[in-house]
Amino acid sequence: MKNTQQPSGMPIHKYRPYHEQLRVDLPDRTWPDARITAAPRWCAVDLRDGNQALIDPMSPERKRIMFDLLVGMGYKEIEVGFPSASQTDFDFVRHLIEEDVIPDDVTIQVLVQAREELIARTFESIRGAKQAIVHLYNSTSVLQREVVFRTDKQGIIDIAQQGARWCKQYEETVPETAVYYEYSPESYTGTELEFAAEVCNKVMEIFVPTAERKVILNLPATVEMATPNVYADSIEWMSRHLDHRENVIISLHPHNDRGTAIAAAELGYMAGADRIEGCLFGNGERTGNVDIVALGINMLTQGIDPQIDFSDIDQVKRTAEYCNQLPVHERSPWAGDLVFTAFSGSHQDAIKKGFEAMEARAAAEGVSVDEIEWAVPYLPVDPKDLGRSYEAVIRVNSQSGKGGVAYLLKSDHALDLPRKLQIEFSGVVQGKTDAEGGEVTSSQIWDIFTDEYLPSPVEDERWGRFELLSTRTSSDMSGDIELSVTLRDGEASAPATGRGNGPVAAFVDILAQHGFDVTVYDYVEHALSAGGDAQAAAYVELQVDGDRLWGVGIDGDISTASLKAIVSGVNRAIRTRRGALASV
Amino acid sequence: MKNTQQPSGMPIHKYRPYHEQLRVDLPDRTWPDARITAAPRWCAVDLRDGNQALIDPMSPERKRIMFDLLVGMGYKEIEVGFPSASQTDFDFVRHLIEEDVIPDDVTIQVLVQAREELIARTFESIRGAKQAIVHLYNSTSVLQREVVFRTDKQGIIDIAQQGARWCKQYEETVPETAVYYEYSPESYTGTELEFAAEVCNKVMEIFVPTAERKVILNLPATVEMATPNVYADSIEWMSRHLDHRENVIISLHPHNDRGTAIAAAELGYMAGADRIEGCLFGNGERTGNVDIVALGINMLTQGIDPQIDFSDIDQVKRTAEYCNQLPVHERSPWAGDLVFTAFSGSHQDAIKKGFEAMEARAAAEGVSVDEIEWAVPYLPVDPKDLGRSYEAVIRVNSQSGKGGVAYLLKSDHALDLPRKLQIEFSGVVQGKTDAEGGEVTSSQIWDIFTDEYLPSPVEDERWGRFELLSTRTSSDMSGDIELSVTLRDGEASAPATGRGNGPVAAFVDILAQHGFDVTVYDYVEHALSAGGDAQAAAYVELQVDGDRLWGVGIDGDISTASLKAIVSGVNRAIRTRRGALASV
Repeated sequence: MKNTQQPSGMPIHKYRPYHEQLRVDLPDRTWPDARITAAPRWCAVDLRDGNQALIDPMSPERKRIMFDLLVGMGYKEIEVGFPSASQTDFDFVRHLIEEDVIPDDVTIQVLVQAREELIARTFESIRGAKQAIVHLYNSTSVLQREVVFRTDKQGIIDIAQQGARWCKQYEETVPETAVYYEYSPESYTGTELEFAAEVCNKVMEIFVPTAERKVILNLPATVEMATPNVYADSIEWMSRHLDHRENVIISLHPHNDRGTAIAAAELGYMAGADRIEGCLFGNGERTGNVDIVALGINMLTQGIDPQIDFSDIDQVKRTAEYCNQLPVHERSPWAGDLVFTAFSGSHQDAIKKGFEAMEARAAAEGVSVDEIEWAVPYLPVDPKDLGRSYEAVIRVNSQSGKGGVAYLLKSDHALDLPRKLQIEFSGVVQGKTDAEGGEVTSSQIWDIFTDEYLPSPVEDERWGRFELLSTRTSSDMSGDIELSVTLRDGEASAPATGRGNGPVAAFVDILAQHGFDVTVYDYVEHALSAGGDAQAAAYVELQVDGDRLWGVGIDGDISTASLKAIVSGVNRAIRTRRGALASV
Repeated sequence: MKNTQQPSGMPIHKYRPYHEQLRVDLPDRTWPDARITAAPRWCAVDLRDGNQALIDPMSPERKRIMFDLLVGMGYKEIEVGFPSASQTDFDFVRHLIEEDVIPDDVTIQVLVQAREELIARTFESIRGAKQAIVHLYNSTSVLQREVVFRTDKQGIIDIAQQGARWCKQYEETVPETAVYYEYSPESYTGTELEFAAEVCNKVMEIFVPTAERKVILNLPATVEMATPNVYADSIEWMSRHLDHRENVIISLHPHNDRGTAIAAAELGYMAGADRIEGCLFGNGERTGNVDIVALGINMLTQGIDPQIDFSDIDQVKRTAEYCNQLPVHERSPWAGDLVFTAFSGSHQDAIKKGFEAMEARAAAEGVSVDEIEWAVPYLPVDPKDLGRSYEAVIRVNSQSGKGGVAYLLKSDHALDLPRKLQIEFSGVVQGKTDAEGGEVTSSQIWDIFTDEYLPSPVEDERWGRFELLSTRTSSDMSGDIELSVTLRDGEASAPATGRGNGPVAAFVDILAQHGFDVTVYDYVEHALSAGGDAQAAAYVELQVDGDRLWGVGIDGDISTASLKAIVSGVNRAIRTRRGALASV
């Protein structure tokens, strides 16, 4: 078997291997024998490094939502901005302090360059905080010394030391705040190791770390330039060459240019680091910062407490998507829409047998299945532990040739189903076709879809306990609105009224009056371009008394479409439960 | 600085660390001192592992487009399906062979389980191919032995050996085809190393590797279960324990459950592997297969020829998105829309100085800038080498508080700009506001947008050399259509006719008659939900005589909107060139 690959013609002459630019030699490295046994100190930098890399930076409202999310998950060190570089960031830090929203055990962190006016402004921003980390940086790499700062190594050391001195000087202006320091030799991965250690040690001459007041030295892969083992070697080397090692917190800040930031963080942590900076789902400059959700859940799968709550990963994802206005990819580790979905028949069979074996084992031991070790093929974590569920997608015949169910609904009916609804509906189609057999046409798929999710156009065939007959909303500008509906409940129709911050919340209030505990997990809407009638489709993922499922509504008014979608979901939940009872 | 992190309450008792399940001990490992110096043998599995993980599996047409893309990029081993498991896959393999579309130096690969009827069918599918790799697998892990196959180690060896014997037997039915073998101990990462080596060695007793006919042993991280250094250790261990090592091609097939598949592939390759299987942009089951685009371009940045052509990464991305019906994320390594974008002022400044320094150095050496070593801060690769460009996004004042430009266009005008157009338009806004200063309102942004991209509603203020006055299309069912337009060119209006496989291609033909070399790089459209008038917006990224830029068109007819968008782009290109001439 000859290898027939050919030269590509790509301009490789322009690039020099990392090891020819910078030497990282550590033949007696110990990290490959190390294992991760406890969570690092986490620092979430979504509000700074993440935010600065957004096309639409977060508004103050979105920033606050992100801050509250991070606090709620358990992050205790949160970089909240670059207050001297941006009035918005300054105002946000002031908001956090003046509105007293920072819990006592949470420390905010602010970034600043080594320039006096910026440092002065930074200390102004943190006045009144119980504690804060002032994160000082300057760039140290060979390339930046040459082309940006046009200075020698001593010049870079002078910048760093002078910055540290200004910090100590302005620290006196905030006597009521416990100030801690973090120093980053920015562009560390482009810096000679000996010089990086020298700069850090020189900065520590000013900051003087003690057991009570350790100094954080952050060693960023500002640009990821080599395989992750090289970063780990460099961290172990630094750990051996830093002064006051016992009073230094070595922090990692890996970027993901080569797609190996998660590995770099893990191997660097094994190599002796104490702390990791990153963003939810890997937001950040260019390819992003390291994904701290993936890092945390990777630990969970090894029986290590990440000290972060990931029990409702969809809620975390939705919030991050809202704040960042960027999607989390379908295949993002542990969180993407497709990561707990099995398409292949052999995978599904193995998963099914895995679940059965766990149940048998739990029964034999007389315990619940949640008390025994998780062991299901192809599912390295129990989706339930993250608030998710496992989905088996069984292909219908029609998918083999002409395109799948979702494709046909989109091309023939202009319905653009969210991924998770696509997955749910695949199961519905399979249920019908298993019973009936044979190839499924586009029109059969449409019949199955309308029968399952939409009110039948034929009066006699309408199913479902509830039907929306009329709606009216009014607002007194209090922030809440009042929704009045006429709702058919079984045979009877009656008016009902609810309140909430929008029609959906108000309608959930009405359903509660009817004895239904409904939570809205996801909401997607779009206009229907086909037909020119400007109809809108709404899709909602609901939890109805413990069952998670989707509803669909179509209407000329988008607000009504969303209420119809909730009715669809609730009716389906009732029908499912009846079906389950009937089959007992 | 106390660490105040708290236990999360996540159910860690359900998970056992990998090293307590399986031992991988290799204290004398050598791979951490190794370096990658040449491309591996690549095998692209987009049409099998990638395709099987899609909600909408590829239609035959999309499969063919993917195959041609992979061949065009330079992949020589391509897994094209699982023909015994799917009629579509069988038909596709037959199509490739019967239509004679497989180049002589490309080898197709087909997957099959160790069952006789499936193996018979597989050999039927490859009949007539010049050469083919038959990829036999069975699952070997502790967990699958226990819960799926309920058999002991000998039972697993028997399955594998019997499968190999059937392969040798049915091989005789395709005497005109050079058949090579690949064997995968599926769920390798859940298998004891000694046993994985034993199964592989037992299979080789049947396949009998020789120098002329090596056997591929593929060691998949079917589920990624540990840090990537553990996978590398396991590969080095296997490399030492496999019989006939010199005639064995060790292949990696990393999945990305933990987000470290790229690292696992790189470290595993350093540990002695010869070959890597993966998918473009990391498509595949759950979190996907390893991303072979990232792996290849990672090599390029180290001066190593990946032997794959990545010189038009946008074209590769667009095609993969079309075939997979899944997006490539904005931050996907080397290919995402945001990876060559700098938002921070200090990054932009450093990049600018890096470009200037390169120009100065090239001038001093009397060579072109493309002949010298690439060295620009924050840009580890020259975007031009991938057919991309670097974009500096400068924030306008209005973005600080109320939301950004893209947000305002969406919320106030229902225009959902593609990311790359958002970035381009940010620069346009900045150009205007630099001149005028002050905060920018939503209505000013709209004025700037219409002035830049759309025809003015005021007759006298219409700009641009071209204007579309009427269109008519006709088709004779030949596959091509004919487009007739009335086009204003300066002061004169004249009819023109072009042909192409659609209106856009036909219009490009017309513009060529007017002396413009136009290539369409990206095309996005959506309905405008606001206003209820069912207008559609079209966005096109064009290359016009060497300039890359966007055009926008809005019309009740989506086809007309796309032609208007091309007019918008061409007019902008002409205007830009005039501006450049004027400023000389």
